[in-house]
Amino acid sequence: MSLAIISPGRNPKVWIDALRHHQPDIDIQVYPEIHRPEDVEMALVWQHPPGYLNSFPNLKLISSLGAGVDHILSDPAVPESMPIVRIVDEKLTWSMTNYVVMGVLNFHRQITRYQADQKKKVWDMSNPEIPVRVGVMGVGALGGDVMDKLNYLGFQVSGFGFSEKTDFPYPYYSKNQLGEFLSQINVLVCLLPLTPETEGILNFELFKQCTKGTYLINVARGKHLVEEDLIPALDQGFLSGAMLDVYRVEPLPQAHPFWEESRIQLTPHIASVTNPLAASPQIIDNFNRINSNRPLQNLVNRERGY
Amino acid sequence: MSLAIISPGRNPKVWIDALRHHQPDIDIQVYPEIHRPEDVEMALVWQHPPGYLNSFPNLKLISSLGAGVDHILSDPAVPESMPIVRIVDEKLTWSMTNYVVMGVLNFHRQITRYQADQKKKVWDMSNPEIPVRVGVMGVGALGGDVMDKLNYLGFQVSGFGFSEKTDFPYPYYSKNQLGEFLSQINVLVCLLPLTPETEGILNFELFKQCTKGTYLINVARGKHLVEEDLIPALDQGFLSGAMLDVYRVEPLPQAHPFWEESRIQLTPHIASVTNPLAASPQIIDNFNRINSNRPLQNLVNRERGY
Repeated sequence: MSLAIISPGRNPKVWIDALRHHQPDIDIQVYPEIHRPEDVEMALVWQHPPGYLNSFPNLKLISSLGAGVDHILSDPAVPESMPIVRIVDEKLTWSMTNYVVMGVLNFHRQITRYQADQKKKVWDMSNPEIPVRVGVMGVGALGGDVMDKLNYLGFQVSGFGFSEKTDFPYPYYSKNQLGEFLSQINVLVCLLPLTPETEGILNFELFKQCTKGTYLINVARGKHLVEEDLIPALDQGFLSGAMLDVYRVEPLPQAHPFWEESRIQLTPHIASVTNPLAASPQIIDNFNRINSNRPLQNLVNRERGY
Repeated sequence: MSLAIISPGRNPKVWIDALRHHQPDIDIQVYPEIHRPEDVEMALVWQHPPGYLNSFPNLKLISSLGAGVDHILSDPAVPESMPIVRIVDEKLTWSMTNYVVMGVLNFHRQITRYQADQKKKVWDMSNPEIPVRVGVMGVGALGGDVMDKLNYLGFQVSGFGFSEKTDFPYPYYSKNQLGEFLSQINVLVCLLPLTPETEGILNFELFKQCTKGTYLINVARGKHLVEEDLIPALDQGFLSGAMLDVYRVEPLPQAHPFWEESRIQLTPHIASVTNPLAASPQIIDNFNRINSNRPLQNLVNRERGY
């Protein structure tokens, strides 16, 4: 019984070390050097080549290497009946929230303005704060924590999502109220799951409905954003800037215009990175559960998409 | 009865407008155009010329235009018996905390590293977070709020001050424990009041006791820092960077080496700026209290220095 790690372009060593730290005798095979595919009962994947999972005749379980599973669900070769699990880690929420709060505060306190002033040796004390009202798209575990933390810091927050909600602790707008949601905020944070309904939701039509000068923070998935719409929305003033952690193609191609756009702050998909040492116990636990037919941890609901 | 505004180099108009908004008939004279000095019973000051307050034979009260009063207490021409008041404003605390939290998060999440990577089109996902433990020097209203907010965000915090404290909600180190305090943190926030005891406390001897690579945030007063010690402490690795909002001479002189130092992020004394509209009611209230001999609001204790 073997665990396959399939994570092209990333260094699997930290994962192997972490898994062996928790279960020294675990049998691990690493893509593309998988010589005993018939032994593989669980695949640990991040952006695997579509169709590749068909190579394992005895596969019983697919686990994402992170919190998201859109990279698995989007592969039509994965049978509907195959169980899929994901990593659930409080540390992921903590990191994500810190990143978003940093983005909000940097916009509110205009860090890039003061960096530019420093370069020009300009001392300008006027208007030191941009008043902000933050809207969070996606109010699950991540979005909810972002809202709690910003609210505690004293910022106005509101949420947007596709389902109806009652008893939500902050002002909440559902899918038919997108325009209303956008009209009362000037910082827009995207933390939606990637589903057919949310793909491409950050597009020019949406930006046109934003308060002029809205600041965009996308920490969900690259496919939420129609990338070619972002610079026009900045040029026309619907947006004043953006902080992006995720892209349609990662690593971001060298020729991509975002690299040289000073109004966009880029980070290389590091807002919330799964910690191998913290995540390994739940991976090993699920690996052991499949053979004893015990219920799996953090099982994904395919209809919900996460 | 006249109120004198003495704030050389700053535009007094926002203050005049705000004061008149709350009391339209108030008699205001503005430095240097004060033609009826004998009418002045209250002076509203920020970095007045030392000795200048002696020009007012009927002066009854000096109010700072901000939370700090060191610029008044340091003028030997101000008689010991002269009452001094300051601005107390929750908004000042809020702004200060936001600024400090921004500085902590930008160090923790390495914003300047990712900005440099973006310029070079480098995609480097390794080590996305620097673990931080934050030490706050000065645990009054401002320092306490910074600690509460960072603690809620999930960061380890500890405090340092000159007095002994019991029942403090976070680990606390008093003046004989400075080395111990510094050895267990890697972000140092200065929020001390400026007194003879604290002037120049941020000096090379202190930096040598810091954990290697400590990040410094000074939002208190320029005179807390021995400015010529900062770049050597960066060069020798005791500090890895600094965010400064205050300087010995403000505006920071054009020839000052801090402007061109990429390891130092400068802002022009805007971490926490008194809002004239919010502060005017307490100024007017004190102005009216001096004539009816009622007790003053926010009276400064000269021995304590704030």
